[in-house]
Amino acid sequence: MKDLGHERLLADFAAGRKAALARAISIVENHRPGFEQLLAELHPLVGRARRIGLTGPPGSGKSTLVTSLTRHYRRAGLTVGIVAVDPTSPFTGGALLGDRIRMEDVALDPGVYIRSLATRGSLGGLSSATRETCDVLDAFGIDRILIETVGVGQSELDVARTADTSLVVLVPESGDSIQTLKAGLMEIADVFTVNKADRPGADRLRNEIEIMLGMRSGGTMRNVPAHHGVDLSRNNLVKQVRLAARDDDAESWTPPVLSTAAAKEQGIDELVEALERHFRYLERSGTLRTRRQARLRERVVEVVEDKTRRRLWGDAATNAWLEERLPSLESGAETPFGIADALLSRSADLLARTTK
Amino acid sequence: MKDLGHERLLADFAAGRKAALARAISIVENHRPGFEQLLAELHPLVGRARRIGLTGPPGSGKSTLVTSLTRHYRRAGLTVGIVAVDPTSPFTGGALLGDRIRMEDVALDPGVYIRSLATRGSLGGLSSATRETCDVLDAFGIDRILIETVGVGQSELDVARTADTSLVVLVPESGDSIQTLKAGLMEIADVFTVNKADRPGADRLRNEIEIMLGMRSGGTMRNVPAHHGVDLSRNNLVKQVRLAARDDDAESWTPPVLSTAAAKEQGIDELVEALERHFRYLERSGTLRTRRQARLRERVVEVVEDKTRRRLWGDAATNAWLEERLPSLESGAETPFGIADALLSRSADLLARTTK
Repeated sequence: MKDLGHERLLADFAAGRKAALARAISIVENHRPGFEQLLAELHPLVGRARRIGLTGPPGSGKSTLVTSLTRHYRRAGLTVGIVAVDPTSPFTGGALLGDRIRMEDVALDPGVYIRSLATRGSLGGLSSATRETCDVLDAFGIDRILIETVGVGQSELDVARTADTSLVVLVPESGDSIQTLKAGLMEIADVFTVNKADRPGADRLRNEIEIMLGMRSGGTMRNVPAHHGVDLSRNNLVKQVRLAARDDDAESWTPPVLSTAAAKEQGIDELVEALERHFRYLERSGTLRTRRQARLRERVVEVVEDKTRRRLWGDAATNAWLEERLPSLESGAETPFGIADALLSRSADLLARTTK
Repeated sequence: MKDLGHERLLADFAAGRKAALARAISIVENHRPGFEQLLAELHPLVGRARRIGLTGPPGSGKSTLVTSLTRHYRRAGLTVGIVAVDPTSPFTGGALLGDRIRMEDVALDPGVYIRSLATRGSLGGLSSATRETCDVLDAFGIDRILIETVGVGQSELDVARTADTSLVVLVPESGDSIQTLKAGLMEIADVFTVNKADRPGADRLRNEIEIMLGMRSGGTMRNVPAHHGVDLSRNNLVKQVRLAARDDDAESWTPPVLSTAAAKEQGIDELVEALERHFRYLERSGTLRTRRQARLRERVVEVVEDKTRRRLWGDAATNAWLEERLPSLESGAETPFGIADALLSRSADLLARTTK
């Protein structure tokens, strides 16, 4: 499998050439021949970048926030990767282009690498594609990776779970629907920001989020220092949550709720500081290691399932065998479960072989 | 595995008791013990119901349309199953309840069975859960199954593909975004309806869809009777498409574009007629058989992948083995690909066994 092109790609990649980064990502994203070898070779270099996922409803200004964060990190001398993930909604689309134009100054910066990912389809899920792309950026030496999910839905949550820190972006208009935010979102959120906070309703929304956090954070409350007493009134709960969030030595983490107006570059310093604080918490508490181990474990699961799929359905004999069974499946003489069992039985060697 | 409860469930199911239907769906939906046996036993009874998928952007009135179609079918003496699929958007939700209340008269009808499906998570995809639920309804003897996808995104298209007929619901307001409708949507659509057609812009949208259909339907155009000549002007293309759509003997199918105002019960007769026409086309052309075979084939693929997952990750020894490898994965000494290969090698017997 090793060829001159591959060796040169690795050398250029190691030398920090952006063209090599782009090619490496393309190979990995499209699962081109050699992608597995490439990812394996880069694997030891992975683990230094900090991955921040941005999740929020359409129109909450995630792209503008990504642009502002990128400018901030660039001013601090850090390189930035932006991965825009679009779970291909058939009814939206078109928005991305406008966002990209707004980002132009950032896009032309040589210290910034932007990549859009769409659905990978049958080759494996979007979260797997996101993780792999981030791994390549990480191995390249990118300092901060911003993962922006464009669509809405379960796939967005799956993608968010690939990040070290999940930033949930809401807008004052989200206020009406805050009660309906699904549990999944509250679970993944490490930092909240109410963006477009110059609009009416921002304070009320922040308050509502903080109350929700207070209600759900049984684990956190136990860690609030004892001198806060046992006043469980609503105001005090909010205060305790705020205190816990601001306590750098806390053993637990309660998501802080910030205000930003990304289009006016307002609140970005505080947001960056909250994200850095969360990184420090992750490192100090050992959560970073736990999360990264969990991510590596999930990665193996993904690779196993991807290999299984490719070995089974990439095999002509297996497909032909299945095709022959369709009539008796149609007539009801055989069931999908019986055929699946038989298929797995006859495929043992196929699945265990280590090539392909 | 056979027990008295199971036998009674089957007997009650065969006797048409709705409680047995509900229990059967719960067992299948949650993959409770015995679900596989149950689906296998019902398998010979599957294939009589007609499955209609409704896909469209939020606010296009899909639920109201489902209610209107249900009333129509009920008046014709047919039983109806409604499967509402919500790919759990973390940012929407809450809408369902309102929709269900609006549907109340339909919901109380003993000839109607309503079921909501949310994400199944790691147990397998939503399209798999939808297919299984529809199979149970089909085996129960339900005549028409309406599959309503609530969310937006790739999973919606996957769910739509489980239906015999896909109805795409748009509203005049969709006009601006019609150019951005992704290819996937045009591919699955068997019938279009512009709902809320009493609003301005409905005619223009219908026209635009018909033009899009004319542009994409190379295969269809060849089948348009020769006496329509070779006038490829825009108006004529639209006319030809309309003619082809209304031709009951056509070998090909061009999606008709209808107008409805479901809340006012307008256009429902025409819509039902278009859906019936599509069924006749499916049967006559052999497409129904092809689609159902393809669906059965996909079903086997789903079951194989589900069994693989359950056998691998439901096995304590495999998980322990993987856990032991995490440190060397973390240090970079081993890669996810190498570990995945080794895992599949050692799991050959596990995967091939026919129990569980």
